[in-house]
Amino acid sequence: MTKTTLTYIMRCCTMCIMLTLFSIDICAEDGSQLWLRYAKSGSAVINAPQGNATIDIAVRELRDYWRGASLTLELSDDVVDDEGFRISGTHITARKPIGLLYAAYHLLRVQAETGQPMLTDCTEKPALRIRMLNHWDNPDLTIERGYAGKSIFKWEEIDGESGTMSSEMQARLTQYARACASIGINGTVLNNVNASPFMLARVYINKVKVIADALRPYGIRVFLSANFASPMALGETKTADPANKKVKTWWMKKAKQIYQLIPDFGGLLVKANSEGQPGPGDYGRSHSDGANVLADALKPYGGLVIWRSFVYGANHKGEDRVKQAVSEFAHLDGQFRENVILQSKNGPLDFQPREPYAPIFDNIKHTDQMAELQITQEYTGQSKHLVYLATMWKEFFSFVNPRQLRGIAGVANIGDDVNWCGHPFSQANWYAFGRLAWNPELSAESIAEEWLTQTFSREFYFVKQLTSVMMASREACVDYMMPLGLHHLFKFDHHYGPEPDGFKAEYPIEWCPVYYLQADSIGIGFNRSSTGTGATSQYRSPYNKLYDDVKTCPEEYLLWFHHVAWDYKMRNGRTLWDNLQQHYCDGVEKVKQFKSVWNAAKPFVDAERWQHVDTLLDVQYDNACEWKDTCLKYFKSLKDK
Amino acid sequence: MTKTTLTYIMRCCTMCIMLTLFSIDICAEDGSQLWLRYAKSGSAVINAPQGNATIDIAVRELRDYWRGASLTLELSDDVVDDEGFRISGTHITARKPIGLLYAAYHLLRVQAETGQPMLTDCTEKPALRIRMLNHWDNPDLTIERGYAGKSIFKWEEIDGESGTMSSEMQARLTQYARACASIGINGTVLNNVNASPFMLARVYINKVKVIADALRPYGIRVFLSANFASPMALGETKTADPANKKVKTWWMKKAKQIYQLIPDFGGLLVKANSEGQPGPGDYGRSHSDGANVLADALKPYGGLVIWRSFVYGANHKGEDRVKQAVSEFAHLDGQFRENVILQSKNGPLDFQPREPYAPIFDNIKHTDQMAELQITQEYTGQSKHLVYLATMWKEFFSFVNPRQLRGIAGVANIGDDVNWCGHPFSQANWYAFGRLAWNPELSAESIAEEWLTQTFSREFYFVKQLTSVMMASREACVDYMMPLGLHHLFKFDHHYGPEPDGFKAEYPIEWCPVYYLQADSIGIGFNRSSTGTGATSQYRSPYNKLYDDVKTCPEEYLLWFHHVAWDYKMRNGRTLWDNLQQHYCDGVEKVKQFKSVWNAAKPFVDAERWQHVDTLLDVQYDNACEWKDTCLKYFKSLKDK
Repeated sequence: MTKTTLTYIMRCCTMCIMLTLFSIDICAEDGSQLWLRYAKSGSAVINAPQGNATIDIAVRELRDYWRGASLTLELSDDVVDDEGFRISGTHITARKPIGLLYAAYHLLRVQAETGQPMLTDCTEKPALRIRMLNHWDNPDLTIERGYAGKSIFKWEEIDGESGTMSSEMQARLTQYARACASIGINGTVLNNVNASPFMLARVYINKVKVIADALRPYGIRVFLSANFASPMALGETKTADPANKKVKTWWMKKAKQIYQLIPDFGGLLVKANSEGQPGPGDYGRSHSDGANVLADALKPYGGLVIWRSFVYGANHKGEDRVKQAVSEFAHLDGQFRENVILQSKNGPLDFQPREPYAPIFDNIKHTDQMAELQITQEYTGQSKHLVYLATMWKEFFSFVNPRQLRGIAGVANIGDDVNWCGHPFSQANWYAFGRLAWNPELSAESIAEEWLTQTFSREFYFVKQLTSVMMASREACVDYMMPLGLHHLFKFDHHYGPEPDGFKAEYPIEWCPVYYLQADSIGIGFNRSSTGTGATSQYRSPYNKLYDDVKTCPEEYLLWFHHVAWDYKMRNGRTLWDNLQQHYCDGVEKVKQFKSVWNAAKPFVDAERWQHVDTLLDVQYDNACEWKDTCLKYFKSLKDK
Repeated sequence: MTKTTLTYIMRCCTMCIMLTLFSIDICAEDGSQLWLRYAKSGSAVINAPQGNATIDIAVRELRDYWRGASLTLELSDDVVDDEGFRISGTHITARKPIGLLYAAYHLLRVQAETGQPMLTDCTEKPALRIRMLNHWDNPDLTIERGYAGKSIFKWEEIDGESGTMSSEMQARLTQYARACASIGINGTVLNNVNASPFMLARVYINKVKVIADALRPYGIRVFLSANFASPMALGETKTADPANKKVKTWWMKKAKQIYQLIPDFGGLLVKANSEGQPGPGDYGRSHSDGANVLADALKPYGGLVIWRSFVYGANHKGEDRVKQAVSEFAHLDGQFRENVILQSKNGPLDFQPREPYAPIFDNIKHTDQMAELQITQEYTGQSKHLVYLATMWKEFFSFVNPRQLRGIAGVANIGDDVNWCGHPFSQANWYAFGRLAWNPELSAESIAEEWLTQTFSREFYFVKQLTSVMMASREACVDYMMPLGLHHLFKFDHHYGPEPDGFKAEYPIEWCPVYYLQADSIGIGFNRSSTGTGATSQYRSPYNKLYDDVKTCPEEYLLWFHHVAWDYKMRNGRTLWDNLQQHYCDGVEKVKQFKSVWNAAKPFVDAERWQHVDTLLDVQYDNACEWKDTCLKYFKSLKDK
């Protein structure tokens, strides 16, 4: 045997082994890569302008992972939108560097979805200007309503003086930024709306600058939640009264300080006079009085004040809680500065599995608005239940046109768990939030398909089956938790299991399930019609009339708006009680089907993630049964009284 | 280097090469394997009863291709349906051997669809008892309305005396039988309904026996089309009058002869007194008189007479052609023998791209009925256009409940072309026909997905994109050929291109496009309402009223039932003329989109089939443009007169 022959055999072997390795699709995964499971290519030729950090990232991502033809990235004013891009042949054009980065992730997404380095001519631009995450992360690294570990913003690992951070945090932050940029998220509020005043102390601002510097190349602006009483809490003023000159001055100086360090700082998010948070109301001032002081301070730098409308129990104590946002804010419309945005949750109560849309979106005409969606599954099974939320958000969009909003905020479900979100399928909610903020016309189904192909497998059977599970999952959750408009029947504080009979005298009544259930031997449900609290009157036509009449009220909102007799005849000819039972049983049955689909999906998923989801589905099934049994037993006890 | 090392390297190489070959998914294919592109396994352990030809095939198919756990096949009366089966764990149970064969194909289909040897417990049985192909094949091997070569039933290659056939024909017939059995087809009519009398001559019966013997193990019964004048044409009687005793005796003897050779012979399909074919009407006898003579002859052996209702221009000459089937047959209902089945096309005219359902299905109550669907694309672009017909058949099923039919016949699109059907996507129509005959509740979409995954690729992107093409394809064809209820505007004889102004004095008027178009300077469309031919009155409520009123008539049938002014205002507020133009343009645009999807699908398909489809899509696009231009130009010339 000649040396040449041997060399040939060896070469052949190497090639074969490489090909063989390539053909193994399923190896253990921990979910840490999220949907960015790109296979290294390393061979792509990318021509691009040099010397810009954002373009450098675009080039690096494409060079590392693009498997197709050479690409040319160019900046040009031909593209109108600041964040948009155009793909034409192998030419990628954008007005600004961030457009090129978005184009790069677009190409890599299509490549991952299809398995092919496809180049399809297109022009893309975001529908919404502000697409931001709200982290409810505290300085002590706990996360309010977080179910995936501690905060990824590890303040003690940042040295604000030298402007450095630990390599672990750097790595995690880079992956976070990649993930956000890959779906077009362009803003992030680093800390909890129940904000520690210390976040505005210089020592933290120095650290925030380090994070902002790391996120900037990915097109992500940093925002902070501000405690309204910050100047006083930090001991720098004696009051936080917005009419006080020293307070005003403090906010102006603070703004200057922040912008000296972070010139593109996004602005401040404020939860004021809500659930114990300080606010202008503490001094007899209005929300606009308070917001405008901050707005004036931020204005010279282009900063925004995002003011939450989630306010109850203050000026309108005793009023139906779902009415209070309109009561608080409608009369202030027109009194806010131009750089104030009112941010409201999608529903009028609080992120329940199903709520009607919040009527504040109908009542504010002269103030910019943002919708606050909850990505973290506070009331939808937390990190234990597979509940895909895009269908819920699309339902909201069918009532409130997202293109009339200035932006969308999503309360993040991100923590320092290896897989970021706790439940492997909870990653899909982060993904879907970004995709919908970019393009709200995308269907929940197509986003699920996108996510599944990138995250798990491109096998048709798998994607089809799991898409149907994801698409059914939110309705299943509504069914086994709170069908037909029921709401807030959760156990106190943790918002996880059922406690329909929950009542604690020491708690505000608006935190007690019995308040929302309004159940008795006659019937069940909260009369918010014109014969009740009149919440229906806050809606625009035709919804005000539609919801007000028990006969025309969509049955999915029935017990939200009406107190209905147990033997009330529903549209299917059967009683309310029958229908309630049916919904709870359907919910449990659906979870059972999810388990069976997941069982059949075993060959398509790596063992680690498969096992994780399987275990969680068992928990979800047990929980669904508990919800059904607890609620129906309690309802029956009332009904049979 | 030691010999051992070298051996090791060589072994390693071989293994790698094998694995490598395995990992190459896309190699040239000629379409000859249809959807049966199973990869050889050869290792499955299958336990089954011995000594039955059908079970032997089931075992062989599974042994060759099943990649999963050992299976046990059993016969048991626990399964109620003669053709049904049950899968429970690894146990496959059926009442009859054919149930086991259907189960085997079910398992292999699921394995091919999912890429995994999945075993999911289920019980399956066919919805329809008779699921048959009608070949319009002539003894000279030409095929009426065949677009994929010559007949696969090559009579000269069969030796009726020795009971043998050529190995080529044997191979082809086996593949045909596998394909049919894999989708549950259990009957086949070997020859054209425009039947040569010679098919009933002894020499042919001997040959038919050879085919029947080959198909029997696959659960496929053989039928023949019979020329009603056969006894006379073969010179054995002086008349074919069904009242004539000698004629009756001839049929009885013929039946006996057939059943001696083919004990499970299915029966005779008859096209009588239609388009020049002989029939009982030639002797002043009714269709029932004629059918019953044949039925009496076949009855002792369990044979069926399938009598076609596609009759026009005989007793009701001059009447609106679409009314004539009801006129001919409604009054005979109740006069047919029990073993006579009336077979009617889905629409009342003749397999147009869109017709309303045939009202004969509403008018026959006491005679078993079968629907005749056309798999071969006579009027839908033949082997040149990608037109998936399952959506059309599902539309028909939404008016005529297939479970109330005795069976379904499909006019085959099979020829001796390498890929069987001419257009690679025409295979899908054969496939979908069988699947729908087994289970009419399957969606057209899911069948397209099944077929695509088995025939091309399991890649999600590919299947999703091509499913949407297939699902849109029939409506596209309607749009670019004959939208809004237009019909029969085809060039004479070949039924392919457009000839809206077609008129030949020497042809029956019912063959001329101008008869169907009824266009003039006022408007266009055939008035079949109560102010016209009254065809609407043949429909059951509510369709009779719905179709009769131009205001309530579904617009897709508008010009089928009504003569409508060019400036008639349609539901979208625009004129009929505008809408017509829009539909033609939409049709062309859709084909353009199909081309673009197919272009993007290139990486997923072998070069041979990709190129073939691509070339055909170019033809389809050109044809669509021709249809649009020719029709709109002609309509405009009338409109502007």
